[in-house]
Amino acid sequence: MSTSGCDRTSHIMRTFKLTLAYDGTGYAGWQMQPGKPTIQAALEAALAKISGETIRAAASGRTDAGVHALEQIVSFKSATALSPETLRNALNAELPRDMAALAVETAADDFHARRDAIRKRYRYQIHDGDVPDVFHRPYCWHYRQPLDADAMARAAQAFVGTHDFRSFEYRWPQRSSSVRTIYEAFVRRTSSPAEGMITFEVAGNGFLYNMVRALVGTLVEVGRGTRPESWPAEVVAAGDRRVAGMTAPAQGLFLISVDY
Amino acid sequence: MSTSGCDRTSHIMRTFKLTLAYDGTGYAGWQMQPGKPTIQAALEAALAKISGETIRAAASGRTDAGVHALEQIVSFKSATALSPETLRNALNAELPRDMAALAVETAADDFHARRDAIRKRYRYQIHDGDVPDVFHRPYCWHYRQPLDADAMARAAQAFVGTHDFRSFEYRWPQRSSSVRTIYEAFVRRTSSPAEGMITFEVAGNGFLYNMVRALVGTLVEVGRGTRPESWPAEVVAAGDRRVAGMTAPAQGLFLISVDY
Repeated sequence: MSTSGCDRTSHIMRTFKLTLAYDGTGYAGWQMQPGKPTIQAALEAALAKISGETIRAAASGRTDAGVHALEQIVSFKSATALSPETLRNALNAELPRDMAALAVETAADDFHARRDAIRKRYRYQIHDGDVPDVFHRPYCWHYRQPLDADAMARAAQAFVGTHDFRSFEYRWPQRSSSVRTIYEAFVRRTSSPAEGMITFEVAGNGFLYNMVRALVGTLVEVGRGTRPESWPAEVVAAGDRRVAGMTAPAQGLFLISVDY
Repeated sequence: MSTSGCDRTSHIMRTFKLTLAYDGTGYAGWQMQPGKPTIQAALEAALAKISGETIRAAASGRTDAGVHALEQIVSFKSATALSPETLRNALNAELPRDMAALAVETAADDFHARRDAIRKRYRYQIHDGDVPDVFHRPYCWHYRQPLDADAMARAAQAFVGTHDFRSFEYRWPQRSSSVRTIYEAFVRRTSSPAEGMITFEVAGNGFLYNMVRALVGTLVEVGRGTRPESWPAEVVAAGDRRVAGMTAPAQGLFLISVDY
């Protein structure tokens, strides 16, 4: 956390919890990168304009370039005297149109969006129709052959539970441990919004870098029939990224919610 | 219709009926305009590349800049030997990603998408939540105050029937007659895809220039409470564009279907 001028004001420094939606299409991901539009840079610029402070925003996790968020959680500290609701409205006036502040509330002083997250939920959309869906193209992976969603749904159960997920981590080893717990994983074919849309949803206590997209790339091998339904369990057991499926494209991925 | 080289081939000239979806966000409307990206220009370029002919495409009606189509109907003539299905797949390979050929079929020689249309259906989406919906922003009018959808639904019944709709024509008089028949008009609040989305749908035997958007602008005056539910009937009766509501923004409008 860094602020400027807070010593000169009589306002009390408070910690805020922001629920942020964004369409990731036009961004190089969450994290600040010189010369590139990022969600963090756009948010911090809006916060600076509103508060007059230099505010550092922390997200529950970094999303990659092209990844979307329905309810990303962000924490930041500010000495602003604005009420949370006024701050939310000011953010919606200042933020680019592909970002929206859904809610702002005050939080415990030591609240931190990344450190305190205990559970996250992601959604991945695949469109397997033979004709592209022009309205959902930035929000799904258009897979040109039909997929067996029921087989994918059964295969996805191999991910549920506490496992070492290093087979699904892009650059291993990135962290001290690649063990994570997946609480729920399902695959559903939905007729809405578009014909032929397959939704994969997964909730867990944490996810490795690119893990959700690698889970999807693995399930797709089952869906297209090149691998049996039992294969994802073997991939988990192998502990080797090279045996898993491809990393599914970013634009189909949505961070849905974060629990604390 | 103009073709090149058709006299040198042994293929028979056929008339095709194309069902075309497009996201109008990036286009200056349907009609060819020098130096501007248009749906017609993109489609004719793809057809030329596939067939080697110069093909003129006729739509059921011109859509304005930013207006979308779920099922625009287009007719054109070609001496191509390709089957309709192959032609559809070739179009989907050549068209920009915000346009999709949903179906191609052969039609009667004299079929013309505009002249033969007997009924069209349009949808208009309004989002009246206080927070912008980042995923639907190119596909709706974000109206920042809450609207009474039920009052709008009742008021919309004034449009049903055969009326002179010159009050809703942008530049009057554009045509020999401004009498049109509206078969159905409804307003519904939908919880999906986004919270706070209001859908207006209208079917008629034809629509004047900008008419649907003027109907919407008029209903919104009722929805926000500045005009009574009885007012749209008075606007129809007045026969004067100046008494109607504003022209609603283009990006909320979708051409849904065309009947022949």
